[in-house]
Amino acid sequence: MYGLNVARFESLTLCQMPEAAWRTRIPVRFGSCDPAGIVYMPEYLSLFNGAVEDWYGEALGISYHDLIGKRRIGLGYAHVSADFAKPSSMGDVLDVAVIVCDIGRASLTFTVHAFKEGIECVRSTFVTVTTSLLDHTVMALPDDLRRAATAYRSRCLHSSNVGSLTPEVVLEAMGSRSDQV
Amino acid sequence: MYGLNVARFESLTLCQMPEAAWRTRIPVRFGSCDPAGIVYMPEYLSLFNGAVEDWYGEALGISYHDLIGKRRIGLGYAHVSADFAKPSSMGDVLDVAVIVCDIGRASLTFTVHAFKEGIECVRSTFVTVTTSLLDHTVMALPDDLRRAATAYRSRCLHSSNVGSLTPEVVLEAMGSRSDQV
Amino acid sequence: MYGLNVARFESLTLCQMPEAAWRTRIPVRFGSCDPAGIVYMPEYLSLFNGAVEDWYGEALGISYHDLIGKRRIGLGYAHVSADFAKPSSMGDVLDVAVIVCDIGRASLTFTVHAFKEGIECVRSTFVTVTTSLLDHTVMALPDDLRRAATAYRSRCLHSSNVGSLTPEVVLEAMGSRSDQV
Amino acid sequence: MYGLNVARFESLTLCQMPEAAWRTRIPVRFGSCDPAGIVYMPEYLSLFNGAVEDWYGEALGISYHDLIGKRRIGLGYAHVSADFAKPSSMGDVLDVAVIVCDIGRASLTFTVHAFKEGIECVRSTFVTVTTSLLDHTVMALPDDLRRAATAYRSRCLHSSNVGSLTPEVVLEAMGSRSDQV
Repeated sequence: MYGLNVARFESLTLCQMPEAAWRTRIPVRFGSCDPAGIVYMPEYLSLFNGAVEDWYGEALGISYHDLIGKRRIGLGYAHVSADFAKPSSMGDVLDVAVIVCDIGRASLTFTVHAFKEGIECVRSTFVTVTTSLLDHTVMALPDDLRRAATAYRSRCLHSSNVGSLTPEVVLEAMGSRSDQV
Repeated sequence: MYGLNVARFESLTLCQMPEAAWRTRIPVRFGSCDPAGIVYMPEYLSLFNGAVEDWYGEALGISYHDLIGKRRIGLGYAHVSADFAKPSSMGDVLDVAVIVCDIGRASLTFTVHAFKEGIECVRSTFVTVTTSLLDHTVMALPDDLRRAATAYRSRCLHSSNVGSLTPEVVLEAMGSRSDQV
Repeated sequence: MYGLNVARFESLTLCQMPEAAWRTRIPVRFGSCDPAGIVYMPEYLSLFNGAVEDWYGEALGISYHDLIGKRRIGLGYAHVSADFAKPSSMGDVLDVAVIVCDIGRASLTFTVHAFKEGIECVRSTFVTVTTSLLDHTVMALPDDLRRAATAYRSRCLHSSNVGSLTPEVVLEAMGSRSDQV
Repeated sequence: MYGLNVARFESLTLCQMPEAAWRTRIPVRFGSCDPAGIVYMPEYLSLFNGAVEDWYGEALGISYHDLIGKRRIGLGYAHVSADFAKPSSMGDVLDVAVIVCDIGRASLTFTVHAFKEGIECVRSTFVTVTTSLLDHTVMALPDDLRRAATAYRSRCLHSSNVGSLTPEVVLEAMGSRSDQV
């Protein structure tokens, strides 16, 4: 819709995602769309936040809700960005994949890629900072989260289909940014 | 809360905003907050989108709703990003200001700055691309919007309080990025 | 949580739902919850609206999105109500079922029942009125929708497990209300 | 839009509201509307919830956010309902007024009335139950809230403009329902 000259990234295809990357499907509902008939921009970020919750449980094996509720570890965002190549409308079903880009002392940087009919339509980057919800100070990533994120990242980098693209190239193309927290 | 090493920008004070910059106040409500007690990330972008609607009408003199509804001009986003220095909770009142950074052929780049007790707590960058809602093609900024945005930008750049900061420095500090659409 | 004296309805169990009633599961996410840690009231109605979209497609065989998008038939609400017996928190998974209570000339009345661990925690009643999205006048239910809703209602009324409860009793207990549109 | 035969209530005019009733104005924004171009139903309830927060502070003199945050008193809903006479679109500005209908031991029943160009377009009824957010049990209304709600109700009932309508008639017309919690 917006034309190639608008997109700030080269759309990947779903097949180019590392095989080991966790995926989910998000149906685009009426309530997520705006009077222009397309997904309301903030709603994308809310849908992606929901996908990330599932990713914690299903790919990392760590309950997002326990982290916040029982363990009182905040997963607030220090940064979020999204680039939009094509709009989506109600009835579309998005394939969504998560890639871990960087694991800092107290931060996790990951990208969320949404695909419509196999072509990347939105790419989003999130930087989460772990905090104590008791005294609201930055705290190091809990060990289990660090281990699980590291293992996940490694699985994606060594997926068989990454092929001639070295892992670094894949991550580079995915907009990896270093984060020194 | 997150500590200085987390923020990806140097917080401005509200006084450092150009005097001519349009401002509004946003009360943080219960329904905008999450179980961590702070504003839910996507909700910031929705609140800012609402502020931008008012900015169109009050600062640019152009009805945002007429643009989309009557004139069928889409104001979709090609890019959005936000950096968070401090969280906000229900009961807080944010001062929000809008700065125009770049005016392209078919795009408008602006930053939305939110201040809590006078200190910048969130900085967000938006790139809007104008499209026809009839055939979904990119179209040039309508003349009245281009004129109004240019005049607004000029007023901000020549505000008396910009002082020793040249306008370019102000925009540089505000994260201006060129956009070639 | 709120105690029995608060609920305005007798909670059903999931087993008491007619076997033929369509069901879905809704995970309660972080973004649906408020600073009290429980689902934000309007969010329930948005989640239920999403479930109703799926119900149209899966139980009635009619695309909700085509009705609104292609066929330009509005499914606006004339009435909505909800009663809350127990709150839900992130991590909970709700079972949700839909019952058709009344089929008017231009309206559809249905209840949405949400169950937590098998016990009804929210009961909601919706009255949809069909309108033309072209000239915004009330229009009769389209024939395919009427037929499908009538067949669905009939299937629920004759489900084997309705048992000693006559269908009328079931619907009575479910808060059926007549709607004369 | 929907025609008179759809509305489940007789629309009041804004002038018929008791003079002492607290009022606010809500601009209808792009982000509150759906692909049918009108306010998304759950969004009305979120907008009204925001109005109620302001009503606590401005009309009752009690901080809604302190009640929940500092005093740990939950204001969850046991019941909510809304009837819609006319849809609203982005750019509309709604006048909203709050009426207290019933004050129970642990509950508060109030109606929220929204007016478009002076004619009631949505009427909503809310039943709040006060709970302890520490142990999640029902607790009696705190004394200051009971006193303030009682005084507010009394002021509305004795407003000079209530005229030939006795207060009971006004409340009856407003859909007051008794609540025995």
